[in-house]
Amino acid sequence: MATTVSPLAPAGFPTLPPVAGVRIATANSGIRYKGRDDLMLAVLDEGTTVAGVLTKSLTCSAPVIWCRDSLPRGSARAVVVNAGNANAFTGKAGDATVQATVEAAARIAGCATDEVYVASTGVIGIPLAADAIAKVLPGMVPALKNDSAALEAGARAIMTTDTFAKGSTRQVAIGGTTVTISGFAKGSGMIAPDMATMLGFLFTDAAIAAPALQSMLSEFTERSFNAITVDGDTSTSDTLLLFATGKAGNAPVTDARAPELTDFRKALEEVMLDLALQIVRDGEGATKFVSITLVGAENDVAAKRIALTVANSPLVKTALAGEDANWGRIVAAIGRAGERADRDLIKITIGGTLICAEGMEVPGYDEAPVAAHMKGQEIDVHIDLGIGTGKSRVWTCDLTHGYIDINGSYRS
Amino acid sequence: MATTVSPLAPAGFPTLPPVAGVRIATANSGIRYKGRDDLMLAVLDEGTTVAGVLTKSLTCSAPVIWCRDSLPRGSARAVVVNAGNANAFTGKAGDATVQATVEAAARIAGCATDEVYVASTGVIGIPLAADAIAKVLPGMVPALKNDSAALEAGARAIMTTDTFAKGSTRQVAIGGTTVTISGFAKGSGMIAPDMATMLGFLFTDAAIAAPALQSMLSEFTERSFNAITVDGDTSTSDTLLLFATGKAGNAPVTDARAPELTDFRKALEEVMLDLALQIVRDGEGATKFVSITLVGAENDVAAKRIALTVANSPLVKTALAGEDANWGRIVAAIGRAGERADRDLIKITIGGTLICAEGMEVPGYDEAPVAAHMKGQEIDVHIDLGIGTGKSRVWTCDLTHGYIDINGSYRS
Repeated sequence: MATTVSPLAPAGFPTLPPVAGVRIATANSGIRYKGRDDLMLAVLDEGTTVAGVLTKSLTCSAPVIWCRDSLPRGSARAVVVNAGNANAFTGKAGDATVQATVEAAARIAGCATDEVYVASTGVIGIPLAADAIAKVLPGMVPALKNDSAALEAGARAIMTTDTFAKGSTRQVAIGGTTVTISGFAKGSGMIAPDMATMLGFLFTDAAIAAPALQSMLSEFTERSFNAITVDGDTSTSDTLLLFATGKAGNAPVTDARAPELTDFRKALEEVMLDLALQIVRDGEGATKFVSITLVGAENDVAAKRIALTVANSPLVKTALAGEDANWGRIVAAIGRAGERADRDLIKITIGGTLICAEGMEVPGYDEAPVAAHMKGQEIDVHIDLGIGTGKSRVWTCDLTHGYIDINGSYRS
Repeated sequence: MATTVSPLAPAGFPTLPPVAGVRIATANSGIRYKGRDDLMLAVLDEGTTVAGVLTKSLTCSAPVIWCRDSLPRGSARAVVVNAGNANAFTGKAGDATVQATVEAAARIAGCATDEVYVASTGVIGIPLAADAIAKVLPGMVPALKNDSAALEAGARAIMTTDTFAKGSTRQVAIGGTTVTISGFAKGSGMIAPDMATMLGFLFTDAAIAAPALQSMLSEFTERSFNAITVDGDTSTSDTLLLFATGKAGNAPVTDARAPELTDFRKALEEVMLDLALQIVRDGEGATKFVSITLVGAENDVAAKRIALTVANSPLVKTALAGEDANWGRIVAAIGRAGERADRDLIKITIGGTLICAEGMEVPGYDEAPVAAHMKGQEIDVHIDLGIGTGKSRVWTCDLTHGYIDINGSYRS
């Protein structure tokens, strides 16, 4: 397990303003971790709407199935999240644990069970006792608080191999009424588009109908959480939920494209991107934060596929770790991405220095400024395919010995 | 660079019987390596037929383009292979180098340039002088030999990060006439389906028409070189060539399915699989040789895609390196492979021990025999999806610190 904070971490956890209508408590469940809280309960006021983006994995966890089935109702009154056990690939026992959990939370919130959302992260395939979480929840009720400390405690309770807690916030106006967005996320198994469970919980006091919330959440996810190298469809447990309590008092909005949402949309996307990039900064073993901008592709979908192929290439990632401007590996990744590319039109720029064009290294290429850029913690790779207008930007980190250390013995 | 032989290497290089009609010489080209031969010239007798399988990369190397254009002619008289520089992404300079090389070899063999085959492996993006190879070839002519030592020298000359030379051979009869197949291959950047250049050269004295050769080579590649985690479409330079000199004296065969080819087909596939698995055994940093058998998929294509997704998962590979039977990561990889799967029908068996079924760990599962199996050098993973009759088998190796060491500073 990682014991030191990522060198790419932000200076500290931000102060998250409380969100009216959201009360949070955390506790130690006794499931896996000792000496830290690993269970979060959030209780939401009546009238809260919800939107969600869930993993597309065909072997998804019991909590994911529960959330997927509940989302069409569009209302939420409670969220329960535990770290340490993903309750994934746990068969009927997994469903029983979810059922007991949502029943206990529904009693606390005074709501229907399909207004309770659940998420779990941690080891796969180890069944939990049905009441492992349910039995802890009632004791958490007195601790429910609507303050910044509770939000930060929530961010910390959902961590697994994360080396720092991840939070983000914005305050903007909707039709003259100030609303708050405060959210937190976890995730660090990030080097591969693999089983890197990403959980994110966003709370706002804005009054926005569930379909409009869903529209915004889905759109912005493509450019944030799905633009880092954990795709939404790759973990058994990936869960992103957005709750809107409506307590700010703005006139309820039902259209995601309504003009009064302009600032809110921008703020929501900023919070989502901020959290997503913090996850990259906590990539297991990461020492470099890498931005890959791809332009000139046939279309945006092709651009993203190629950018992610480069971002996921172990040979590119190890070269980044070695501070080696081995652009040949980038070319090779482009060539195998399965999208249209023309070898002789590709231009690759690292740290602002053009390295190759017209099918070869540019004449007189001086590697010195590129090598200097590679020594920094933030690396910018810009690729121009030169065949169209499709573009995409994705973020990743390098592949180091630290990744092997963490993942060679995760369960032990 | 790796300096010690892979722990998974075979005991030694096999004695390859010479193939009538094939003469080989090696030399040091001065391009990159010192103190070792890095250039191979094979001259083939008149009447030699040829088949090839080449990378599908869209950013493929100049030599690959040359071979692809030449293959339709179906006849070959020479092969030139160099290690140390892939002549890939070298623009027009790359084409000029190929042109000069094939012209020099054609003069030596007394043939047309499109009867000369070329392959290059090594660093991408560094142009070679046009005559870098051509000027060395004439001096190699006196050294051309039809013997076992020359074949072994060829196998050694084409190595890059390989820690051992890879050869294989079989002798079988076609219609009562004994024929020989001797071949060698290189490749070791094997942990990822990435820029892991694989080169393979197979020689036989059988008389078989080019279309029949091609049919066999393509079919068997799917179950050998394309069933290890370097796919044919992933490197800029992957090249597999099969030459048949016809000097054994069998009645020429034109139909790949002719009954007299039964034993030859089996022998050819065995040689190809033997070489492919030797490449896995030389996987960069590999300490475990891993076989993944997948049955019960919707069809064979789905089976292979899922098996390769498991085989390429960094989280699965690091768990294998850590001798950790973390089958949850296998489930997660199955779930994101993009093919049909039903969580509750999957059965995973490692080293003969059934671990999970019916959506969870089997009751009373004893991890001890699995842990013991994981400590060995050869690991067998068997996955039954339980939904169809599709099946596939692929091979891979683990992901270790050694991989990071080798690839973090390949160029330095």
